[in-house]
Amino acid sequence: MIAGSAYRFLLIDAGAGIATITLDRPEKRNALSLEVMRELIAACEEIGADRSIKAVILRALGPAFSAGHDLREMLSRSVDEYRLTFDVCVRLMQTLQAMPQPVIAEVAGVATAAGCQLVATCDLAIASTDAVFATPGVKIGLFCTTPMVALTRAIGRKRAMEMLLTGEPIDAKTAVDWGLVNRAVPAADLAGATRALAEKIASAAGFVVGLGKSAFYAQIDLDQPKAYAYAKEIMSMNALAEDAQEGMGAFVDKREPRWRT
Amino acid sequence: MIAGSAYRFLLIDAGAGIATITLDRPEKRNALSLEVMRELIAACEEIGADRSIKAVILRALGPAFSAGHDLREMLSRSVDEYRLTFDVCVRLMQTLQAMPQPVIAEVAGVATAAGCQLVATCDLAIASTDAVFATPGVKIGLFCTTPMVALTRAIGRKRAMEMLLTGEPIDAKTAVDWGLVNRAVPAADLAGATRALAEKIASAAGFVVGLGKSAFYAQIDLDQPKAYAYAKEIMSMNALAEDAQEGMGAFVDKREPRWRT
Amino acid sequence: MIAGSAYRFLLIDAGAGIATITLDRPEKRNALSLEVMRELIAACEEIGADRSIKAVILRALGPAFSAGHDLREMLSRSVDEYRLTFDVCVRLMQTLQAMPQPVIAEVAGVATAAGCQLVATCDLAIASTDAVFATPGVKIGLFCTTPMVALTRAIGRKRAMEMLLTGEPIDAKTAVDWGLVNRAVPAADLAGATRALAEKIASAAGFVVGLGKSAFYAQIDLDQPKAYAYAKEIMSMNALAEDAQEGMGAFVDKREPRWRT
Repeated sequence: MIAGSAYRFLLIDAGAGIATITLDRPEKRNALSLEVMRELIAACEEIGADRSIKAVILRALGPAFSAGHDLREMLSRSVDEYRLTFDVCVRLMQTLQAMPQPVIAEVAGVATAAGCQLVATCDLAIASTDAVFATPGVKIGLFCTTPMVALTRAIGRKRAMEMLLTGEPIDAKTAVDWGLVNRAVPAADLAGATRALAEKIASAAGFVVGLGKSAFYAQIDLDQPKAYAYAKEIMSMNALAEDAQEGMGAFVDKREPRWRT
Repeated sequence: MIAGSAYRFLLIDAGAGIATITLDRPEKRNALSLEVMRELIAACEEIGADRSIKAVILRALGPAFSAGHDLREMLSRSVDEYRLTFDVCVRLMQTLQAMPQPVIAEVAGVATAAGCQLVATCDLAIASTDAVFATPGVKIGLFCTTPMVALTRAIGRKRAMEMLLTGEPIDAKTAVDWGLVNRAVPAADLAGATRALAEKIASAAGFVVGLGKSAFYAQIDLDQPKAYAYAKEIMSMNALAEDAQEGMGAFVDKREPRWRT
Repeated sequence: MIAGSAYRFLLIDAGAGIATITLDRPEKRNALSLEVMRELIAACEEIGADRSIKAVILRALGPAFSAGHDLREMLSRSVDEYRLTFDVCVRLMQTLQAMPQPVIAEVAGVATAAGCQLVATCDLAIASTDAVFATPGVKIGLFCTTPMVALTRAIGRKRAMEMLLTGEPIDAKTAVDWGLVNRAVPAADLAGATRALAEKIASAAGFVVGLGKSAFYAQIDLDQPKAYAYAKEIMSMNALAEDAQEGMGAFVDKREPRWRT
């Protein structure tokens, strides 16, 4: 069980195989201060190590999902302090993708800069129809360079370039069209839609989902021959696993599988 | 001329520069057993070596385009047997892309797992409007890891992740929106649409099409400077070719070109 | 100030931080002859070195944006002459992406072959609703291999393959759907829309925009860990810059920033 009380800026809730991480700093528009990012990393590592959890929802309190870095923390610092901030930020993004459970961003409001990057980085995302997304750093003289890494890999070149160079927001419908989020639903249906997606994922064998997520990111940056060389070995190992034998057997026997993991 | 009678699970038809490979195992939902995959590889190699063939259509009999691997072949095997299956499967995908003629998938029904991978791997694809696509391995404990290699490169991250983690199908319209297939047409128009596309391709010079297809896959995984270094050399060689001189000359003279290949 | 009179095939106009390069060879459908490409490279280098310019518009006179290479220049040449042509063409594409100012293609008509590549290569593009795009080289025996490098990276595999193998045009709406251009507007609104986008970009700090554009292309071909390692260092340096300190300070103080660059 996850010890939610250890976090100052996060609410952690876990049950029925699903953990929910809620950013609880609405008065700061859930800005990703160093402390918040470190808590997120710790929470992901804690949940990542808990085999009873099979899917994760990342949500936020208040009108903003996250406004990105805390600008008050960013003024008049040394280069080492800036390096620390972006280093921890990148570590957060890598931790989200390295943890075995899929992470679904539940985006009820504004997701900007590193907040938009967080959405692009999560394995899946569902937005409310009134959510907006932007990488507005150019407007304050700090180009969204690290968010760009996630954004360009999610929505392609011309679209990312326009968001980055103008800083202008896109609405949820556009975010769906461009592949930044999986779908948009009315605000009233958001929690239910995210929950249903998490439950769907949690109904599969946790070992298999974790192996699949890990392989997804391992192969995505390889050239195709290397990606296949890797993928076929992973899939051979997967086929040997108890859950695969049970799942294939259940399918052939036309019965429900009983997962071990 | 292609010796169709040599195949047990395939029908091969060739004429007017176009070869059609038909998966003929409808009672097994055209499952990609080892034997079927080996026949497909052999057929592609045979057609690939036949310079009279300029385009290829890959279709299937029955309500399923292909349901992927044959699960009965997958139960209780050794790791070497699994490795063999996925090795032959990857070899099939590579053979489809390595043969000089473009391959058009004509998808009339369900394309799942390695069947969906086959569609993603073909150079082009036209689906009937009632076709559906899925990577449902997660539901039977065997994550669609090798299909993922083709799928992520066709439709992008968030969308591929949703298909892989939920196993849920997408319809033909969605497959068009996401770039998995080129277009969807009513079932009654499918064969005609695929044929027309094949004829269009077959009207070009075979040497030029083969060179272009080969260059497509050679450059796609390179970084842009390396891709350009490669592409400009290929294009210089292409320009020297008899078909290019004839084609450019015909265009300048406003007459129809007469291809040598 | 840019010396427009030095160019034979280009009109150069600059003012209010925005430079406009106009292809002025309408009777040749703005074909990219060696001379035209060399003038474009020279113009981009000249503008690139001018810190007063913060955004660039690339447009063309007449019904064609550009019909690609000049076929009369391409007939019956030696391999060294072909190599020179494609070498200069690739150098043009690299120069457009290497110059610090964003380049917006303003596409009023037909953009084919290397003309289509030019649109794919520009950082941003706005088309009139009646613009069309094609890579028709296959029809004249000269596969659009170098345009393919830009096209596949802009619109993905299946769609690029169809354009390349059939040579058939796509309309502006499709180009928007596929991410080849950012948006399409009625012809009467085209110049205004492009201007507004250029002005939006020119309202930001030039140093920050240039750094962001450079980082965009530097990271896009790296695997994600390398892209992040690079991006976080660039963003740390950016944060130290006077324009970033001014921009963040102005945001916190709720006032307009005054850029140095």
